[in-house]
Amino acid sequence: MQTHYSRIAGRSLERLSALSDGIFAVAMTLLVLELHVPVMDAAHTLAPIWTAGELDQEVLLGQALAKLGPSISTYLMSFMTLGIFWLGQQAQLNHFRESTRVLSWIHIGFLCAVTLLPFSTSLLAQFITYRVALGVYWLNLLLLGLLLMASIRYAARAGLLRDELPPAARLIHSRRVVSYQVLYALAFLLSIINTYISIAALIALQFHSILGFELPFVRRGLILAAS
Amino acid sequence: MQTHYSRIAGRSLERLSALSDGIFAVAMTLLVLELHVPVMDAAHTLAPIWTAGELDQEVLLGQALAKLGPSISTYLMSFMTLGIFWLGQQAQLNHFRESTRVLSWIHIGFLCAVTLLPFSTSLLAQFITYRVALGVYWLNLLLLGLLLMASIRYAARAGLLRDELPPAARLIHSRRVVSYQVLYALAFLLSIINTYISIAALIALQFHSILGFELPFVRRGLILAAS
Amino acid sequence: MQTHYSRIAGRSLERLSALSDGIFAVAMTLLVLELHVPVMDAAHTLAPIWTAGELDQEVLLGQALAKLGPSISTYLMSFMTLGIFWLGQQAQLNHFRESTRVLSWIHIGFLCAVTLLPFSTSLLAQFITYRVALGVYWLNLLLLGLLLMASIRYAARAGLLRDELPPAARLIHSRRVVSYQVLYALAFLLSIINTYISIAALIALQFHSILGFELPFVRRGLILAAS
Amino acid sequence: MQTHYSRIAGRSLERLSALSDGIFAVAMTLLVLELHVPVMDAAHTLAPIWTAGELDQEVLLGQALAKLGPSISTYLMSFMTLGIFWLGQQAQLNHFRESTRVLSWIHIGFLCAVTLLPFSTSLLAQFITYRVALGVYWLNLLLLGLLLMASIRYAARAGLLRDELPPAARLIHSRRVVSYQVLYALAFLLSIINTYISIAALIALQFHSILGFELPFVRRGLILAAS
Repeated sequence: MQTHYSRIAGRSLERLSALSDGIFAVAMTLLVLELHVPVMDAAHTLAPIWTAGELDQEVLLGQALAKLGPSISTYLMSFMTLGIFWLGQQAQLNHFRESTRVLSWIHIGFLCAVTLLPFSTSLLAQFITYRVALGVYWLNLLLLGLLLMASIRYAARAGLLRDELPPAARLIHSRRVVSYQVLYALAFLLSIINTYISIAALIALQFHSILGFELPFVRRGLILAAS
Repeated sequence: MQTHYSRIAGRSLERLSALSDGIFAVAMTLLVLELHVPVMDAAHTLAPIWTAGELDQEVLLGQALAKLGPSISTYLMSFMTLGIFWLGQQAQLNHFRESTRVLSWIHIGFLCAVTLLPFSTSLLAQFITYRVALGVYWLNLLLLGLLLMASIRYAARAGLLRDELPPAARLIHSRRVVSYQVLYALAFLLSIINTYISIAALIALQFHSILGFELPFVRRGLILAAS
Repeated sequence: MQTHYSRIAGRSLERLSALSDGIFAVAMTLLVLELHVPVMDAAHTLAPIWTAGELDQEVLLGQALAKLGPSISTYLMSFMTLGIFWLGQQAQLNHFRESTRVLSWIHIGFLCAVTLLPFSTSLLAQFITYRVALGVYWLNLLLLGLLLMASIRYAARAGLLRDELPPAARLIHSRRVVSYQVLYALAFLLSIINTYISIAALIALQFHSILGFELPFVRRGLILAAS
Repeated sequence: MQTHYSRIAGRSLERLSALSDGIFAVAMTLLVLELHVPVMDAAHTLAPIWTAGELDQEVLLGQALAKLGPSISTYLMSFMTLGIFWLGQQAQLNHFRESTRVLSWIHIGFLCAVTLLPFSTSLLAQFITYRVALGVYWLNLLLLGLLLMASIRYAARAGLLRDELPPAARLIHSRRVVSYQVLYALAFLLSIINTYISIAALIALQFHSILGFELPFVRRGLILAAS
């Protein structure tokens, strides 16, 4: 029975893409719920201390918004992360001929890691100086990377890649995942000194990934390791 | 008028798939809202008791995260459940030639059961030792199964299955639903002893379903029952 | 400039469908947030009063769940409503050749009414005996109907209907909207007696619409009115 | 490695559209969460003061709903804004032959600005008399416009526009963005007098944009500036 079911379930790349786009869309939009609007009463109760006019109230609201700094940083970092992994998953799915049940489950696992990112982000925003919170965030990044890696390796072995693809296509995907995961791990290790340095390094890496610079040294090491 | 309307409404499998993917995506992502970030103040107010340095604070946050254990278990169980039923529904929709208004309503009912799962999950996470909470969760699973069953039976009777399908296709779908529903019911009955055993059995079943092992004894019983 | 822009914007029925499916999916799933899990502490603090064992706790949770009755009724009513209007909109979009900017805006307005339904539902669930709350809910239903009506009328006048459609197609759509809107209004008027009767009538109408019975008297009246 | 990756990532306009529709759908539906249902207890505790019957309770609820006025205005303004920018983005994507990684990132940035709008709206609804809150809202509108502008300029330069497009197509898109952004900025400047006037001007502009009137004076100025 199961054998039959495996043959009929999870073959559609189109619906896997649709579910993925949906989950990325919801996760990206849920991140914003972490940006809490300052509480009205607090601003008002603070106001009398200044015993000043309308302008001071504006200043107070400005100050309250400035306190959203850490939330905004983690929001942007996570939005960029989701963008990067959305593009990475999309590039892979474009390279597959069809899906199988196993491949579908690898991607459902990947999507599970995507839905966990708003939680990890929220944890980090509230405990931005805690290594434990940063560790949870990093584990989330690692999980995303490992599952994308598992996807391309399985697809290559199971013969699901499009025929017109050059043999190097699989390597491009997995090298990219490995090199950034190595750098994410190094960035996380910087938290031994300070979590802010670590977060700054992660954000720099995401910008690096988005702007599409070369990573020559990692590349060379990987070519050596792969040969 | 109604007859006319039935002839023009709910024929598109494509839009039914799109609505389904959207609802599954939102339900899967909403599950994560059940994972509450530990409250900052509590951790801070606890800290002075230890009168220790930075490291103890980290330990306290780690302990607070460890308390999310039950929530994380039910989160994973529900995510797997949604993945399983998403694949099951997708496999069915792939087998249909077109939809009808009745079939659309069966699937809207199924999607209603999907949207209820975050509620059942949340209830179970907060009342994990209560048989009533587990019963609600099990009823939700039952409803999902019954509606998928109704869908394939109706589609077969109404001649909506693709012509190229082997006659056994309908049986594969319904046997799979029946066999797992029997096992879900048995797992729920284990809650007479203890709800944790029951939940462990449900999680084991979901892993079983995902990994795609055979269910030979159920299969044989069903073949007998169907012959 | 505007003229030019009108010629290039909002022509894609495909993306209008995608946005609609997304909004319906989110609105349908958000409805469940109205089902609040009973608060843990309350159940625990109640427990000692009974000074009984485990079973009484289960009974207490069962009683707390039973109190969700009104929320569950309004949840189901709204889910059915969204299903009905989703099918109605889908049937229309299937009948259009292409979209225009005006048609897109009519449907964006319709989607705005869709996103308001979780609010109206929540209001009604919490103030189920208030005519004001029921009035808001009914206005929401009316808005949904009026905009679907505007859509089909505009599309017919602007020549956007598919050529292969029989001339009666437009009438089927608008008659259906008008007849149910008349019945919704009558159901709302029953709230002069009691809001529960009114809600029961609305739920009965939604079941009627879903099960697809004829509405002969309304039909005949409309044929007369239209001739 | 990066060069290779750029060649394979982010080429699909279809999935970019799907992600966009998903994010717009979630953001549009999340806006409604800003409409808080009046608190039940408050209405009940107020009731005894009036020591009147059922009717007074209804009046109280009506008054409580009337207080949602500012929230409803900002809700509608933001819903219209999202509708306008959804159509604007859609019109652009329809004009592109394919995507590139850079174009994908411009649109992911645009979608980031879309997800921020529920936050800006919520901030403005709660601090409707504060220029700081209106400034944040205006910055959000500006960001949306700048990124749409960047998208069309980049696409034209990178040769991604469809061949059949008249050369003026790029100008239509960018002129429209520029002219409305100039008007948004002027509307924001009105907040020197009063934020309500400023909001009224913004709402008027959104209606103007939706109804599709000409903006002759801005047009002429731009033609001069562009020649």
